[in-house]
Amino acid sequence: MKRNGILGLLTDFGHESYQIGIMKAVIKNISSDIDIIDITHDIRPFDIEEGAFVLYKAALNFPGGSTFVTVIDWGVGTSRKAIVMRTKNDMMFVAPDNGVLTVIGKHFRVVEVREITNNEFLYSPVPSHTFHGRDIFAPVGAHLVLSTPIKAVGPLMDTYEVIRYEEGHFDSNIIKGKIIYVDHFGNIQTNISSNVVKDAGLVHNEVVKVKIGSKKFKMAFVETYGNVEEGKALLDIDSSGYLEISVNKGNAANVLKIQDKEEITISK
Amino acid sequence: MKRNGILGLLTDFGHESYQIGIMKAVIKNISSDIDIIDITHDIRPFDIEEGAFVLYKAALNFPGGSTFVTVIDWGVGTSRKAIVMRTKNDMMFVAPDNGVLTVIGKHFRVVEVREITNNEFLYSPVPSHTFHGRDIFAPVGAHLVLSTPIKAVGPLMDTYEVIRYEEGHFDSNIIKGKIIYVDHFGNIQTNISSNVVKDAGLVHNEVVKVKIGSKKFKMAFVETYGNVEEGKALLDIDSSGYLEISVNKGNAANVLKIQDKEEITISK
Amino acid sequence: MKRNGILGLLTDFGHESYQIGIMKAVIKNISSDIDIIDITHDIRPFDIEEGAFVLYKAALNFPGGSTFVTVIDWGVGTSRKAIVMRTKNDMMFVAPDNGVLTVIGKHFRVVEVREITNNEFLYSPVPSHTFHGRDIFAPVGAHLVLSTPIKAVGPLMDTYEVIRYEEGHFDSNIIKGKIIYVDHFGNIQTNISSNVVKDAGLVHNEVVKVKIGSKKFKMAFVETYGNVEEGKALLDIDSSGYLEISVNKGNAANVLKIQDKEEITISK
Repeated sequence: MKRNGILGLLTDFGHESYQIGIMKAVIKNISSDIDIIDITHDIRPFDIEEGAFVLYKAALNFPGGSTFVTVIDWGVGTSRKAIVMRTKNDMMFVAPDNGVLTVIGKHFRVVEVREITNNEFLYSPVPSHTFHGRDIFAPVGAHLVLSTPIKAVGPLMDTYEVIRYEEGHFDSNIIKGKIIYVDHFGNIQTNISSNVVKDAGLVHNEVVKVKIGSKKFKMAFVETYGNVEEGKALLDIDSSGYLEISVNKGNAANVLKIQDKEEITISK
Repeated sequence: MKRNGILGLLTDFGHESYQIGIMKAVIKNISSDIDIIDITHDIRPFDIEEGAFVLYKAALNFPGGSTFVTVIDWGVGTSRKAIVMRTKNDMMFVAPDNGVLTVIGKHFRVVEVREITNNEFLYSPVPSHTFHGRDIFAPVGAHLVLSTPIKAVGPLMDTYEVIRYEEGHFDSNIIKGKIIYVDHFGNIQTNISSNVVKDAGLVHNEVVKVKIGSKKFKMAFVETYGNVEEGKALLDIDSSGYLEISVNKGNAANVLKIQDKEEITISK
Repeated sequence: MKRNGILGLLTDFGHESYQIGIMKAVIKNISSDIDIIDITHDIRPFDIEEGAFVLYKAALNFPGGSTFVTVIDWGVGTSRKAIVMRTKNDMMFVAPDNGVLTVIGKHFRVVEVREITNNEFLYSPVPSHTFHGRDIFAPVGAHLVLSTPIKAVGPLMDTYEVIRYEEGHFDSNIIKGKIIYVDHFGNIQTNISSNVVKDAGLVHNEVVKVKIGSKKFKMAFVETYGNVEEGKALLDIDSSGYLEISVNKGNAANVLKIQDKEEITISK
């Protein structure tokens, strides 16, 4: 399958960072035809888990043939490798080998992973010690979009780095999961997929017990926000297929006083 | 008139939201030739009034033939309709039918409004309950940019939702209006148009009485910031034709301790 | 040399500002083929020094033939001129004549500077008093990208405005410089170039004395963040060739309690 011209960018640089502009200039200088799409640049600094999860939730909704460049890279300049992963749906992911492709690798079928060793695609023959986004990831991503064969980047790898990442699961009549992050609206994003909710037998409009950290709540599992009164908390499946906790026309994290990265359990 | 290839996006998702990237991937997958322009993604969550006003101030400066997708959508998944509005200047506005097109409808001449019922343009035949930006608004907007006739989206509507919105006016020797929002520089943006200022007979460099909430000030109505001393407050007409309160090289909202959404009156 | 199709934008409007979208609509209406790249829109309001420095650090990494539009413009509507600067590497910079091109002018060789007086390229024949980004800078930048000859914009100028700007230097065994800004990661960005560090004879892994304002520290000058323990401060040369103070996997500004715009000295 041919590349589709789309290059998705995800970093923890901060949206205000001029380094994003530099990466785009490097890409556009390789080919003006590439459609660069910002996924987000506001992953919390160094939060590989959040980055890995958001990358997956975004990529799920990108068309096959898309290419991605991910730069969350606290190990820049050390011995960590730079890699490209190709998946069954013909997506390609260029990233540091630090676990940021863990969720992609878990859900999409991995066809091959290669180490980037060929310096012919790099911004300069010898990359800097502080900005591989410009020097390696952006230009390699751009060349892949232009249908450079993946094998040109370097040799196959037997394995790649993964972070400790366990999705929510249903066990002994309890759904157990974790809050990965809180979004702009205060919606609390969990790692509990709709399949787990189905396994647990939750039905719409059923009221369940929810425990987050040491706090306990009761709320309904509904189809959409408007199914509960304004200001009331609810559980629903978000647009990427994961359970979220929301408040209709409100900010769930504020209303429920929830921090992210807490454990969550749900039971009838 | 043909569409001009431009698709303006305005949401309350927050600039850091990966859902914006998903909408762009949906659009670019329909056609790589569409020029997507972010207007803003930082309308306050659910603030239909601010969104409606900013959409108008932006669209005023876009060329005829432009298409817009607006997603401020607390009613997603409920019975609220999805609509397209076409205006006399041949702009098209795709949005939830929740009042966010109120200011556009008031100022541009509305040619027709249609309900989106044809699912052939949607992201998937059955839209989700939580993300119509991806499922309905982005793909319909993209197809309209490609000159799909507006009548293909669905049937004509007799009316559309409007919010309570009254522009500033001149009455009994007083200009009465409202603060809609405070911008990045702390400039205080009112709903008082330059025509109202003209009706009131204000002339440049005239000092007037300004009352905001319960606070009273005197300041000059000037042509531009530099016409008063640094640190001094002033009134001027902004680049979209509305009265704003600014401080030369300063932050008016901080200096004057003003909240938005307050009433404002101006008199000689 | 021909223009390369790239138009870099740098402003202090704030990323949430719809005025950025208006500038892009003006540009795309002139030509859909222009590749607009956001450098940043979050320069602190009116901070000409930060803007001048970031513009240079970004432009350093853009390809020759690029065009830039910079709008940090507290003097809009006053008598300050609008200018275009062309540099030896065939870059062009459109900006208000208020010093924001000081660092570009210092480091790139200036070929010519012209005042924009020809109103044929403007958004409207008579520009507004509050938004020259839309009225002058964006459309002139777009026309230059389309290879309109620079001489068409207006007459040559003998000089242009500069701000007081002195780069870090090595003198009497001490490196003296200044903190220009703190970035998203808390990295402290100085105006001390790698050449000055070389003149001072600093070698990798050498521990030096650093004084910032009245605070004193000892830290190693290293090649990259990972060369010190997590949580430890370090000095390194950033990807644009300037000395920065960082903390490995941490936020240097928070850890060291540093404000920007402070003086810094480094000695053995």
